[in-house]
Amino acid sequence: MSKPIITAYDWVPPFAQGQVRDLRVRWALEEVGQGYDVLYLSQGEQKEDAHRARQPFGQVPTYEEDDLVLFESGAIVLHIAERFDGLFPANPGARARAIEWMFSALNTVEPPIMDLAIVTLFERNQPWSEPRRPSVETRIDERLGELSRRLGDKRWLDGDAFTAGDLMMVSVLRIITGEGLVEQYDNLAAYVARGIARPAFERALDAQMAGFTGAPPPHIAAWLKAEGMMA
Amino acid sequence: MSKPIITAYDWVPPFAQGQVRDLRVRWALEEVGQGYDVLYLSQGEQKEDAHRARQPFGQVPTYEEDDLVLFESGAIVLHIAERFDGLFPANPGARARAIEWMFSALNTVEPPIMDLAIVTLFERNQPWSEPRRPSVETRIDERLGELSRRLGDKRWLDGDAFTAGDLMMVSVLRIITGEGLVEQYDNLAAYVARGIARPAFERALDAQMAGFTGAPPPHIAAWLKAEGMMA
Repeated sequence: MSKPIITAYDWVPPFAQGQVRDLRVRWALEEVGQGYDVLYLSQGEQKEDAHRARQPFGQVPTYEEDDLVLFESGAIVLHIAERFDGLFPANPGARARAIEWMFSALNTVEPPIMDLAIVTLFERNQPWSEPRRPSVETRIDERLGELSRRLGDKRWLDGDAFTAGDLMMVSVLRIITGEGLVEQYDNLAAYVARGIARPAFERALDAQMAGFTGAPPPHIAAWLKAEGMMA
Repeated sequence: MSKPIITAYDWVPPFAQGQVRDLRVRWALEEVGQGYDVLYLSQGEQKEDAHRARQPFGQVPTYEEDDLVLFESGAIVLHIAERFDGLFPANPGARARAIEWMFSALNTVEPPIMDLAIVTLFERNQPWSEPRRPSVETRIDERLGELSRRLGDKRWLDGDAFTAGDLMMVSVLRIITGEGLVEQYDNLAAYVARGIARPAFERALDAQMAGFTGAPPPHIAAWLKAEGMMA
């Protein structure tokens, strides 16, 4: 097998550094001990045809391994978990539950969390942005409360073994960790802390951060400065 | 193997009939020719402890097969596709791409579509609901345009073979089909039409609709009538 190649950005605004979704793929590769190469894209390049051929929605990450080209971080992490040991349990039922938690992270927990990103970023200057915030936070809190009750005092979502489901759930919760919502639930806050204390996560985060060696296009830099989102 | 048991509602409001997510699981089971039993829940029962033990977020569907209990329709469809022939190609690369399209449907295309449901249902009486609608529709249109360009003149997303990825993408697009957004793209509209013309889909939809033999709790009926959402 050829060494996998992933795509990532050479620059994103400060608020997005450490959150771009190639982090999830890097983390998975670090957990299974598989080295990889990175093809860095400058801002704007992700919307050009060459990258659209890999990723129809013009986003990162993608994953290439021999003839296989994949997009969607969920699908890539699942592929890595199937291909290498370390992220899926051997027991078929436990493996199905790990996949269940991956989908749960991405389709049940992440949507209201991304809705909060719409409030605080994309619609931040709209008059309804702050009035909408409480209802979005209520939807997030409902999910977090339910997740907290299911986690209980277990170490990971399905018990003692860390799986790709935990990798994805911790990645999703981490988006809003530190903002007071996750912290309403001691067990969830401790769960996220356990996840991001894993050496594989730390290596993945360091690698993503080290990759931001580029610069924004002038019009994006000007806009971010005008919005107070970049010094 | 025991016959699978799924959960579904015995009643939902008219606008949700034919859209509840057990449809995706029924469709998958019909495609692979696997019979199943249904445990129907009355409205409210999904939030009680007995069902929360199956589904921590108090939703349907769930799937039970021998000792395995699964939630998340994405994970259940993936499990069915692995367990029975008919929804995953034999080629490992094509199988990985089918999974890619499942995640793409659920994590890239569905979130803005569900955001439109927030506009038209959950926040319909908020003063910002209609002012927000254009920006939500723009986000949906961006995704649909990208999907349309990738689909091109192919029959299904990865070529000639219908997969679990198409099942999920058609299910997601169908949420807004008929409202003018999908119809901007002839190939997408035809793709959805091909999907829902499949006999397995028709059987699944008929089965979901036939299962609505219950009635709403009085307070929900009164609220829906007051909102003009039910006759």
